Amino acid sequence: MKLVIVGGVAGGASAAARARRISETAEIIVFERDSFISFANCGLPYHIGGEIQDRSALLVQTPESMKARFKLDIRINCDVIGIDSAAQTVRVRELDGGREYNERYDELVLSPGARPIVPAISGVDLSAVFTLRNIPDMDRIIRKINIDAPRSAVVVGGGYIGIEMAEALIHRGIETTLVEMSNQLMPPIDPEMAVPLHQEMRRHGVRLQLNDALQEIAEVDGRLQLTLKAGKPLVTDLVIMAIGVRPENQLAELANLAIGARGGIQVDRHMHTSVEHIWAVGDAIEVKDYVTGLAAQIPLAGPANRQGRIVADNIFGHPAEYKNTLGTGICKVFDLAAASTGASEKLLRGQGIPFEKIYVHASDHAGYYPGATQVNLKLLFDPSDGRLLGAQAIGPKGVDKRIDVLATALRAQMTVFDLEELELCYAPPFGSAKDIINQAGFVASNVLRGEHQICQAEQISARVDDALLIDVRSPAEIGVLGTIDEALNIPVNLLRANLYRLPKDRPLVVFCAVGLRGYVAYRLLNNLGYQVRNLTGGFTTYQMVKRIGI
Amino acid sequence: MKLVIVGGVAGGASAAARARRISETAEIIVFERDSFISFANCGLPYHIGGEIQDRSALLVQTPESMKARFKLDIRINCDVIGIDSAAQTVRVRELDGGREYNERYDELVLSPGARPIVPAISGVDLSAVFTLRNIPDMDRIIRKINIDAPRSAVVVGGGYIGIEMAEALIHRGIETTLVEMSNQLMPPIDPEMAVPLHQEMRRHGVRLQLNDALQEIAEVDGRLQLTLKAGKPLVTDLVIMAIGVRPENQLAELANLAIGARGGIQVDRHMHTSVEHIWAVGDAIEVKDYVTGLAAQIPLAGPANRQGRIVADNIFGHPAEYKNTLGTGICKVFDLAAASTGASEKLLRGQGIPFEKIYVHASDHAGYYPGATQVNLKLLFDPSDGRLLGAQAIGPKGVDKRIDVLATALRAQMTVFDLEELELCYAPPFGSAKDIINQAGFVASNVLRGEHQICQAEQISARVDDALLIDVRSPAEIGVLGTIDEALNIPVNLLRANLYRLPKDRPLVVFCAVGLRGYVAYRLLNNLGYQVRNLTGGFTTYQMVKRIGI
Ligand SMILES: Cc1cc2nc3c(=O)[nH]c(=O)nc-3n(C[C@H](O)[C@H](O)[C@H](O)COP(=O)(O)OP(=O)(O)OC[C@H]3O[C@@H](n4cnc5c(N)ncnc54)[C@H](O)[C@@H]3O)c2cc1C
Ligand SMILES: Cc1cc2nc3c(=O)[nH]c(=O)nc-3n(C[C@H](O)[C@H](O)[C@H](O)COP(=O)(O)OP(=O)(O)OC[C@H]3O[C@@H](n4cnc5c(N)ncnc54)[C@H](O)[C@@H]3O)c2cc1C
Ligand SMILES: CC(C)(COP(=O)(O)OP(=O)(O)OC[C@H]1O[C@@H](n2cnc3c(N)ncnc32)[C@H](O)[C@@H]1OP(=O)(O)O)[C@@H](O)C(=O)NCCC(=O)NCCS
Ligand SMILES: CC(C)(COP(=O)(O)OP(=O)(O)OC[C@H]1O[C@@H](n2cnc3c(N)ncnc32)[C@H](O)[C@@H]1OP(=O)(O)O)[C@@H](O)C(=O)NCCC(=O)NCCS
Repeated sequence: MKLVIVGGVAGGASAAARARRISETAEIIVFERDSFISFANCGLPYHIGGEIQDRSALLVQTPESMKARFKLDIRINCDVIGIDSAAQTVRVRELDGGREYNERYDELVLSPGARPIVPAISGVDLSAVFTLRNIPDMDRIIRKINIDAPRSAVVVGGGYIGIEMAEALIHRGIETTLVEMSNQLMPPIDPEMAVPLHQEMRRHGVRLQLNDALQEIAEVDGRLQLTLKAGKPLVTDLVIMAIGVRPENQLAELANLAIGARGGIQVDRHMHTSVEHIWAVGDAIEVKDYVTGLAAQIPLAGPANRQGRIVADNIFGHPAEYKNTLGTGICKVFDLAAASTGASEKLLRGQGIPFEKIYVHASDHAGYYPGATQVNLKLLFDPSDGRLLGAQAIGPKGVDKRIDVLATALRAQMTVFDLEELELCYAPPFGSAKDIINQAGFVASNVLRGEHQICQAEQISARVDDALLIDVRSPAEIGVLGTIDEALNIPVNLLRANLYRLPKDRPLVVFCAVGLRGYVAYRLLNNLGYQVRNLTGGFTTYQMVKRIGI
Repeated sequence: MKLVIVGGVAGGASAAARARRISETAEIIVFERDSFISFANCGLPYHIGGEIQDRSALLVQTPESMKARFKLDIRINCDVIGIDSAAQTVRVRELDGGREYNERYDELVLSPGARPIVPAISGVDLSAVFTLRNIPDMDRIIRKINIDAPRSAVVVGGGYIGIEMAEALIHRGIETTLVEMSNQLMPPIDPEMAVPLHQEMRRHGVRLQLNDALQEIAEVDGRLQLTLKAGKPLVTDLVIMAIGVRPENQLAELANLAIGARGGIQVDRHMHTSVEHIWAVGDAIEVKDYVTGLAAQIPLAGPANRQGRIVADNIFGHPAEYKNTLGTGICKVFDLAAASTGASEKLLRGQGIPFEKIYVHASDHAGYYPGATQVNLKLLFDPSDGRLLGAQAIGPKGVDKRIDVLATALRAQMTVFDLEELELCYAPPFGSAKDIINQAGFVASNVLRGEHQICQAEQISARVDDALLIDVRSPAEIGVLGTIDEALNIPVNLLRANLYRLPKDRPLVVFCAVGLRGYVAYRLLNNLGYQVRNLTGGFTTYQMVKRIGI
């Protein structure tokens, strides 16, 4: 068996390592265009920002260590520029010297990754405009910062990498503006859930320019002048383009592999492409979304690593299936974490998939134990049977844990009713006797059982009906935080004594800070025959929705 | 409907609150013997230790606030001393004044909890000997510490409460000895997994006296003298008895309710006891273990709270089932956390249930991002189909997250093959592209697929066969940490060059620090036809097993 792998990082190196573990005799050649393999792509922004001080820490393996451990033929600085699938050869160009040659394969694995999208606008090729994909890119950015000491920078694009780069630049003491075309950062989460993230960025000095787009870059007096669609021109010293990535599919195109609408190489569940003996994994492929079954591009390291393992299994006769991608992702944003798994509301709406949603905002651990902070959680589920569709969370602590649990529940096809029953770790420093995930399960299950009629914040903003709003918080809370215009204030504990103030013939909407007291009020009023709904997520969600302007 | 509840804390208060949310008209009476309801039992040790500074933070709700919110008839300082199930009345004694009366019920919920076990040895009634269950117990201990300034204390019992109390006493500057009858602290985990916990306790100054038992306490010169079974007598100023809890089942016995072998009130899946109109929840009941189906006593707050909710549902005609208890639990031990879910090896062995086990020791997040620490994970699974049976983890960070994910996976009846596929949050500050849970899934799946033959540390200690041990770590690591006697050292990356040193006719056992390089070596040698096994968990597990002396 002669196995040839194109790309020597997450998917490619994983496939190579697994292949060697399965077969000591296979010939395994890894072609890598770059001079590094197996490096920590995900760590690049943190080395620029200075948290990861030691550059060599990013080199998880070197060609030498990988050769020694796995007896691989690793050829760095070798660009694979063509595939002859009939002859089963690849065409290789040595970047040092330019020699070209053909290399035969029995099986070929493509793990070429994805490259940063660079829009076709003038000035993107200026020397102070950067993208970040690999070690040389990182080195260039660091050199720029160290040598030219830029005062200001603009990051274009508010995805994971844009966010991480903005944070890194702030850590380096550079005034940073982030320009993003849509109304929110971090596309996998819904806009209202991004509000705390926007606040956190601003709190740390990032100037956020949402709903705006870069149109042109010009060099003026040794600095860069950026023309924007909406805002005033920006003058800056350094630009990071981080508007997304596109599958590296040139090779695949040349070899006539089937390619999806968004450019991803199409593979079956065994990672096999449309052409015999050619397999593909990682950022370059199109996957199926686990929840919707739709084709998707999900460029994440976990899936790439696992696909690398699966492809090797299949090539060596151990049938293994890749069972679609949930897209579980997380991003550190200064002192916050934002994470999601499964489908977002945007996606479900866009696809016309029916869903219900609830919000729960609760402590990451018992409120009476020091250091408790709030987790903001949004849960999306199927209104017909309660099956989980997606979840998003944001907060200073405990966000990864909640999304990991929900990602596991999603994989297991669990319903909101199952969340009621989860038995999670509880001691005061770690959780609550009813964890926020149980609470979310309670709330969603009550909604589905018809025991909790909810109102969504955007319905209030839109004043969809003539409901009377009742704020059941204490006057002290309202004094500090404000309330919704025209809301009547009756604290939950005084509701029974104030029933005479409530009309029975007009819909009521009750709300509190997060939805819990509102729900207690809802139950009371509903039991007494009032037409009532409870604002899910309470004033907290209301403010998030209002701030984003949905 | 007239609902009477005995016990006003976790199970009882939850049942009362849910009952009121379901019915505004029901009459709901809560009898509580103590003068506090709805308090944070779990926070008591932390207030003694000083982390929770404000005592009132422990009072999650007061009788007044619960009355105001839920219109409950809460009768504190009222001991329920009898049940007439034919007449449907309870007998109540007011502890202030001693008046007794009968109260009728339509439905009766018992949530009396569990009381600390006090062994029948002389001296346990001395005034400096304490147990910890409620606020008055806590107040007494704090008073003792504040007034008498004890120099030294002895905690008897190494369960959650004993461990938390030992930590609290150390925080208060008191020399503390913990005496435990078995060879380990924290009974839900297996002995070898408790080793880091023992080390952490000792590192913080707790004197651990394992394999020893208290036999007698005597007052000598105003101090306490403790006679032990094995060790020398201890002289101390304060004793905390924390050897476990026993269901409060006197009332249930008086009412002739069916009671299990360990004293728990027996209930069906709806929380109904053997006697009509009487229900029971919380620490007082016998539950079924989710994994083994065996009867168990699992005194934890999460189950008690959920059972309280379920019992109210059933009483008010919303059928709801309690689906057994996993026993997910966690304990903070100074700077470590130890947690478990599902069955332990001890339990499985004791019941003769077939199991396989593997160990993985890996970083809580990407090793190249600052602050990574090791999580030690043990996974137990069914060797026939890979179904998860239990998991245990210990480490400074990320332990609760892993056990929560595994508890969810256990509930979902997942197998180790499912763990391979879990898509968990990954960015360098939070996890790894292959999370330790994926790695555990890989390892266990390889074992079941026959692709990874493992050797257990206790087989090495016992020298079960004449295997040749090969340490595949680097000489530098061995220099620092030592190795196993008689092991040959061949670093994994040099193995291919040293094959001539290895016999083909003798079993080989390879090992490294945690099992990963050992596995790479295993694959290489296995592929070349050697008879080889890999030590699961590597030298790390070996040392844990050796230290505990299995
Ligand atoms: C800055 C940054 C931060 C990230 N952070 C995260 C994170 O926090 N979490 C997360 O899950 N993911 C993160 N990712 C994404 C993650 O790194 C990718 O999903 C993963 O690396 C994809 O693996 P891959 O093997 O498909 O591609 P890559 O790892 O990109 O490897 C592809 C390799 O193929 C080489 N190559 C391409 N074409 C050829 C050719 N024709 N001939 C020879 N060689 C070729 C390329 O040079 C490249 O080295 C991040 C990515 C970046 C850039
Ligand atoms: C110090 C300590 C720390 C703990 N830490 C944790 C932890 O970290 N995590 C965890 O999950 N669990 C922990 N627990 C266990 C948890 O508190 C219990 O599982 C939970 O409180 C059980 O709820 P329950 O309603 O069954 O009993 P309880 O909460 O004990 O309530 C029972 C109440 O009934 C009253 N009562 C009993 N009999 C009568 C009667 N005849 N008449 C009137 N009243 C009566 C009692 O006075 C008591 O207040 C801890 C417990 C203690 C004591
Ligand atoms: C470095 C790299 C080549 C390693 O690949 P790998 O050897 O497949 O992965 P790991 O080192 O995690 O080892 C996993 C293997 O060890 C085994 N293993 C892990 N822990 C083990 C343990 N404690 N005991 C025994 N075996 C263990 C697993 O079963 C798995 O083997 P398998 O696939 O044959 O089942 C690859 O991960 C890589 O290139 N990483 C850097 C690039 C990257 O991922 N970037 C994106 C993220 S920043
Ligand atoms: C205080 C106590 C009485 C509260 O009981 P409770 O009202 O049932 O519990 P919570 O306050 O957590 O509220 C849960 C309810 O609010 C609802 N809820 C929670 N968050 C919500 C939100 N954001 N929006 C709407 N509803 C919400 C849940 O659906 C649930 O209602 P349901 O059971 O009718 O479905 C009880 O927990 C208690 O006594 N605790 C202290 C004792 C204890 O547990 N000790 C051991 C641990 S230290």
